[in-house]
Amino acid sequence: MINSVNAIRVLSVDMIQRANSGHPGICMGASPMLYSLYNKVMNVSNEDDKWFNRDRFILSAGHGSAMLYSTLHLMGYDITIEDLKNFRQLNSKTPGHPEITHTKGIDATSGPLGQGIAQAVGFAIAEKHLSSKYNKEGYSVVDNYTYVICGDGDLQEGISAEASSLAGHLGLNKLIVLWDANEVQLDAVTNVATSEDIMKRYESYGWNTLEVEDGENVEDITSKVLAAKTSNKPTFIKVNTIIGFGSPNKAGTPDAHGAPLGSDEIKLMKSNYGWELEEFVVSDEIYQDFSKAIVHGNESKNAWIKLVKEYVEKYPQLGQEFMNIIKDDVDYDINIEFNEQLDEASRVSSGKMIQAINSQIPNLIGGSADLSKSNNSIINDSGIFGIDSYSDKNISFGVREFAMGAIINGITLYGGLKAYCATFFVFSDYLKAAMRMSAIQEIPSIYVYTHDSVAVGEDGPTHEPIEQLSGLRAIPNFNVVRPCDANEVKAAWKIALNSKSTPTALVLTRQNMETITTGDVYENVSMGAYIISDMENYDKVLIGSGSEVKLLLDVQKELLNKSIKTRVVSMPCIELFLNQPEEYQNFVLGDLCMKHRFYVEMASAAEGYQFAKNVISINRFGLSGPANDVISELGFTVDAIVKKIIS
Amino acid sequence: MINSVNAIRVLSVDMIQRANSGHPGICMGASPMLYSLYNKVMNVSNEDDKWFNRDRFILSAGHGSAMLYSTLHLMGYDITIEDLKNFRQLNSKTPGHPEITHTKGIDATSGPLGQGIAQAVGFAIAEKHLSSKYNKEGYSVVDNYTYVICGDGDLQEGISAEASSLAGHLGLNKLIVLWDANEVQLDAVTNVATSEDIMKRYESYGWNTLEVEDGENVEDITSKVLAAKTSNKPTFIKVNTIIGFGSPNKAGTPDAHGAPLGSDEIKLMKSNYGWELEEFVVSDEIYQDFSKAIVHGNESKNAWIKLVKEYVEKYPQLGQEFMNIIKDDVDYDINIEFNEQLDEASRVSSGKMIQAINSQIPNLIGGSADLSKSNNSIINDSGIFGIDSYSDKNISFGVREFAMGAIINGITLYGGLKAYCATFFVFSDYLKAAMRMSAIQEIPSIYVYTHDSVAVGEDGPTHEPIEQLSGLRAIPNFNVVRPCDANEVKAAWKIALNSKSTPTALVLTRQNMETITTGDVYENVSMGAYIISDMENYDKVLIGSGSEVKLLLDVQKELLNKSIKTRVVSMPCIELFLNQPEEYQNFVLGDLCMKHRFYVEMASAAEGYQFAKNVISINRFGLSGPANDVISELGFTVDAIVKKIIS
Repeated sequence: MINSVNAIRVLSVDMIQRANSGHPGICMGASPMLYSLYNKVMNVSNEDDKWFNRDRFILSAGHGSAMLYSTLHLMGYDITIEDLKNFRQLNSKTPGHPEITHTKGIDATSGPLGQGIAQAVGFAIAEKHLSSKYNKEGYSVVDNYTYVICGDGDLQEGISAEASSLAGHLGLNKLIVLWDANEVQLDAVTNVATSEDIMKRYESYGWNTLEVEDGENVEDITSKVLAAKTSNKPTFIKVNTIIGFGSPNKAGTPDAHGAPLGSDEIKLMKSNYGWELEEFVVSDEIYQDFSKAIVHGNESKNAWIKLVKEYVEKYPQLGQEFMNIIKDDVDYDINIEFNEQLDEASRVSSGKMIQAINSQIPNLIGGSADLSKSNNSIINDSGIFGIDSYSDKNISFGVREFAMGAIINGITLYGGLKAYCATFFVFSDYLKAAMRMSAIQEIPSIYVYTHDSVAVGEDGPTHEPIEQLSGLRAIPNFNVVRPCDANEVKAAWKIALNSKSTPTALVLTRQNMETITTGDVYENVSMGAYIISDMENYDKVLIGSGSEVKLLLDVQKELLNKSIKTRVVSMPCIELFLNQPEEYQNFVLGDLCMKHRFYVEMASAAEGYQFAKNVISINRFGLSGPANDVISELGFTVDAIVKKIIS
Repeated sequence: MINSVNAIRVLSVDMIQRANSGHPGICMGASPMLYSLYNKVMNVSNEDDKWFNRDRFILSAGHGSAMLYSTLHLMGYDITIEDLKNFRQLNSKTPGHPEITHTKGIDATSGPLGQGIAQAVGFAIAEKHLSSKYNKEGYSVVDNYTYVICGDGDLQEGISAEASSLAGHLGLNKLIVLWDANEVQLDAVTNVATSEDIMKRYESYGWNTLEVEDGENVEDITSKVLAAKTSNKPTFIKVNTIIGFGSPNKAGTPDAHGAPLGSDEIKLMKSNYGWELEEFVVSDEIYQDFSKAIVHGNESKNAWIKLVKEYVEKYPQLGQEFMNIIKDDVDYDINIEFNEQLDEASRVSSGKMIQAINSQIPNLIGGSADLSKSNNSIINDSGIFGIDSYSDKNISFGVREFAMGAIINGITLYGGLKAYCATFFVFSDYLKAAMRMSAIQEIPSIYVYTHDSVAVGEDGPTHEPIEQLSGLRAIPNFNVVRPCDANEVKAAWKIALNSKSTPTALVLTRQNMETITTGDVYENVSMGAYIISDMENYDKVLIGSGSEVKLLLDVQKELLNKSIKTRVVSMPCIELFLNQPEEYQNFVLGDLCMKHRFYVEMASAAEGYQFAKNVISINRFGLSGPANDVISELGFTVDAIVKKIIS
C-alpha cells in the first residue's frame, strides 16, 4: 500500500520534472487521500468512465493534476505511461490542469480555485434530485457519492463559502470534502493570510466535521471517509498533511508548491521513500494492488446496468423517462403560442416559456440568486428544492451568484438535467468565472439574465449593465442571446435547450416590449441574425438586438418619412451569426459599404464595429431615474437615433 | 428619540411612494441603527463631508438608500426636502442606490451586495496603516471607526466571507458591522436559502460578536456599538429587526422588501407610529434632536484641524508628508532607467517599478491574492501588513480575489494612499464586479494583472486569458494598459499613479519581451497609441499591444523582404486613444482604407474592428503546453501572420 501511494508520488514528481513545470508539493502530500479514495472507497469504472451512477471526484486544487493522472493510470483508465511522460505538452491527455474535455476519468475541469467545491455541490444536488425522483424500493438507480480534495486556497475563496453554506442548508450528505491541510500556500505559510478556525466555520454551515491527524495514515483516511458516508450531513474532513512530503529540503515549505523539485532533490526523495525503480516504471505488484478496486468498480457498473434493465421492465414509463434523460434523448421542441399583440417584458415571456418547458419535458431544474420573482424564473408547478423536498425543482440559491453558476455547471455535468440559473444581468459579473468554466467544459448550462440595460431605470448605475454584453460575447464557445420579443424568447430558450456543448445566456428586459415578429422564428434566431424588415433599394442597414429592434423599426418609419429607405436586421446572437456561412452573413448585412450600416445597442457594444462602421452605443455608466427618462437622456429615442443616422 | 427614528422611516417611505420605486422594508426596520450611529455614535461633519478623520459609514445594503438620505438630511448635509422628493429621479442628489459621486455625505457607492463590507475592510486597513505610520503621542491625526449596516443578502455573498475572514486575521478592531437581521430577503424568508449559524461563523473568523435582542431599542444598539469600540477585534453585531416594522399588513414579510407600500398601508403605518405631520414635513423638535450630534461632529472636525496644525509644526517633515498624501499632492513622476537591451517579462519590469515608486513616494500599499512572487508585486523594502506590523505595506490577501478588489477600492476611497492589487489576468474575472465599482466611484484603484495571454503555456486554458481584455475594455471609465516593453511599463505605472478618477489595469506578460522603445515613452503611451515604426508610402498598418508589438515589428521586416511596406502602431491603451482628438487618431492610424489595416492580438479582440477591417485574434480557449508551442499552434508566429496579411 505504501508502495502504491509512493508510486503516485514518484510518477507525479517525475512528470513535473520532465515537463519542467507543475506543482509537486500537493502531489507528495495528498497522494494518500487520492489512493484511499480510488483504491478503497470510490465506485468507478475504467470500462466506462461516464458510467452514470459512478461516484464522482473533483480535484478542486486542480494544480495537483499530476497525482490524479498517475492515479487514473494505475486505475487502468486510458492514460498510458507515455501520456504521463507528455504531461503539460501540447494536445496531450495530461494537460496542466484536469480537463474534462481531454481526459477520460476526469469528472470536472478544475484549477480556478473554489469552483471545484461548488461544482461538487452541483453534483450532490443533482444526485439528490434524481434519486428522489427515480429511485424505487430495491432500485436505487441513482445512488452515488461526490468526493472533493481541496486545498487551503479553495477554502479562502468566497465561492467555496457560498457553496458550502448552501450544501449545509440542503443537507447534501453524499458530499464529502477532504481538506489537504498543509498550512502552506503559494506565497508563504497560510498564517500570513488567514487565522480562521475552519472546522468551526464548517460547523456553522451545518456540516459534519472530522479530522485525520496524520495524512500519511491511509487506514485513518479511509475509515473517516467511510464514517462520513453514514452522516446525514455533508462532511468536511481535515487531513493534516505535509506539502512536499519526503523531500528533505523542501517539505513543509512554499518552495515545494509550484516548481519542479530538481533532479537532485528527487533522488533524495526517492531514497527517502525507498523507491528503486527506474523513472516512469511501476512494478506489477503496484498495478496488482489496484486490480481489486478496478474489478469491483466494473462489477458495480455491470450490476447497475442489470438493475436498470429490471427497473425499466418493472417501471416502464418512469424507466424510459430515466433512460431518455440520462442520454439527453429528450424532445426540446417546446410548444407555446404567444399572442401576437403582446406588450410584455421578455423576462415575462421567459417565465411563460419556463412553465411550458416544465410541462413538456421531465428534466428542468433551476433557480435564482434571491430574485426569482424579478427574474420570472420560478417553476410554478413545483416547490422549493430542500431537505424534505428533493424532487422539487426550484433551487433557492440565496444571494450567492458565483456558487450558483458553478453549481449549475455541476448539475449539468452530472447529467440527466437541464439546469438554469437567474439573476440581474449586471450581476452576471459576480459569476463570470463560472460562465467561463461552462464554456471551457463544453457544457450547455443556461443563464437567465433579466433587467438587461439602462432601462432598469430607478435602481441606477450599479444595477444597469453597460459592458456585460461585450464581456460575455467575448467568451469563446458561449452564446449570448438577446431576444427582441416573445417569439424570439421562445427561440432563445429552444437554442439553449438544444445546445449540447455550448452554454447560453438569455438576456432579457425588465420593461415591456411589443411583439414584432410572427409565429415561429426559431430558424431565424438560430442563424444569429436575420432581416426583420426590408425595403427595396435600401440606403442604410440598421442592426440591433433586444429592445432596440423595435426602436429601429420606428426609426425605419421615421427615416422613410425623410425618403431614406432602410433594412432592419435583428441580431439576437452574434456568436451564432458568425458561425454561419459567409454567404448568409453577406445576404443579411447586404452589399452596401460598411459606412451605410448602423449597429445600435444600449450597451458598450464595440463588437458592433465588425458589422457596421457606425456604432450607436453607450460609453458611460447609466443613471437613476424612470426608465424612459434614462433612455432618453442617453439618446435612445427615435428622434435622437434618426438625427445621428442622418448626420 | 422615537419621533426622530420615525421621521427617518416616514420620510423614507414617503420618498419611495412618491418615486413609486424603492425598498421600504429595510428603511422601516433598520432606521433605529442609522439613528443610533449618526445621532449617538459617529463623528462626522456636515460642514466638510470629506473631513479626513471622520468616522466612515457604508450602507452595504444599499437598497436602503432612502433611510440614509433621510438621515443625512436630518444631519444637515446638503440634501433638502426637495431632494428627498426627487428620490430616484434623473440627476437628483438622491439616486436609487447611494452614489459617492452624486451626494455629499456618502462614503461609498453601494448596492451590489457584499461589496460594502469589503470596502469597509479597506477603510479599516487604511486607517490602521496611516495611524500606525503618522500618529504620534498626543497627536492621533488618524483615528476613526468604520461602521457598516448589512443585510442577510450581504452575508450570503462570498465576498463578505472573504473580507470578514481577512478582517479577523488582521485584527481590524475599528471596524464595526451591524447586521440587520430581519430573516426576510427578496425571494422569501431567509430560511429557504440558508440555515447557517452566522454568529458562530463570525467567531470562526476571529471577530467579537454581540447581539441586540430588539432592534427597536436604540439605547441597546448604542451601548453595544460603544462596547464594540473597545474590542481588540472587529465586531459583528446582530440586531434583530422586523422588516417593514409598523406596517400592519406587510411587516415581517417579503412583501415589505422591494415595492412601495401603497398609500393606504402608509396611512396605517403612520397611525401606528402616531405620526401626524404632513408628507415631507419634519418638526423642529426632530431637527433639534440632531443638532447636538451635528455640533459635536463639527467641533471634532475643528479640533482635528487644530491638532493637525500643531502636529505639522511639531513634526514638520512627517506632518508635511501627511498633508501631501491626504491631499494627493504627491509627485508621481517616478524616475527609473531601464537598460535598453533588456529581455524581461513586463511583470518583472513592473516589479522594478514598484520598488522605484516605493522609494520615491511615501504612500504606496498593495498586495496579491497569494501570487505575490508570480505577480512580482512585493514591495521589497517592507514586510507584511499585519497585527504587529500595520505600517508595513505588503497586504497578503490570501486567495480572495473579489474581496481584494473591493478592499483596494476601500483603501483608495479612504484617501491618502495609492493602492494596488495583483493576480493572474485570467482571474480578473473573479473581481470583475469590484473593478466596475472602482470605475463607477471614479477612483484610481490599480489592478496589476500578470500572465496576460495564452503565453502562460503549461497551466492551460483555465489559466490563459482570452476574453478578459475585451471584457475590461468595455467598462466605462476604466483604463486597460498593456505595455509592450519595460519603458511602456514605466509609462503605464505613471498613468495609473497620476489618474485621479479612473481606475487602471496593467496587463503584463509572464514571458520575456525585448525592449523595443527608447527612453521615456510616457507621452506616447498617455495618448493610448502611437507610431512605433514607420515607412514612407506604407501599404499596410499593423496595430497591436503588449507582446504582439515585437511580433509585428518582426512581421514588418519580413513583409519588407516581400516589398510590402508597413507602419506599426503600438496601442497599449484603447480607452486613452479614443479620448484623443480625431486628428491625432487619424494621424496615428494613417489615411489608408480600413481594409489595409490589421489589428493583431492574442485575445478575442473584437474591439479591434473599430480600428481595422482585419482582426487577427483568438476565438477559442487556449492550450496546455510550452508557451512557444501554444503560441505557434494558435498562429501567432511571424510566418503565420505574414501569410494572413498577404492573403
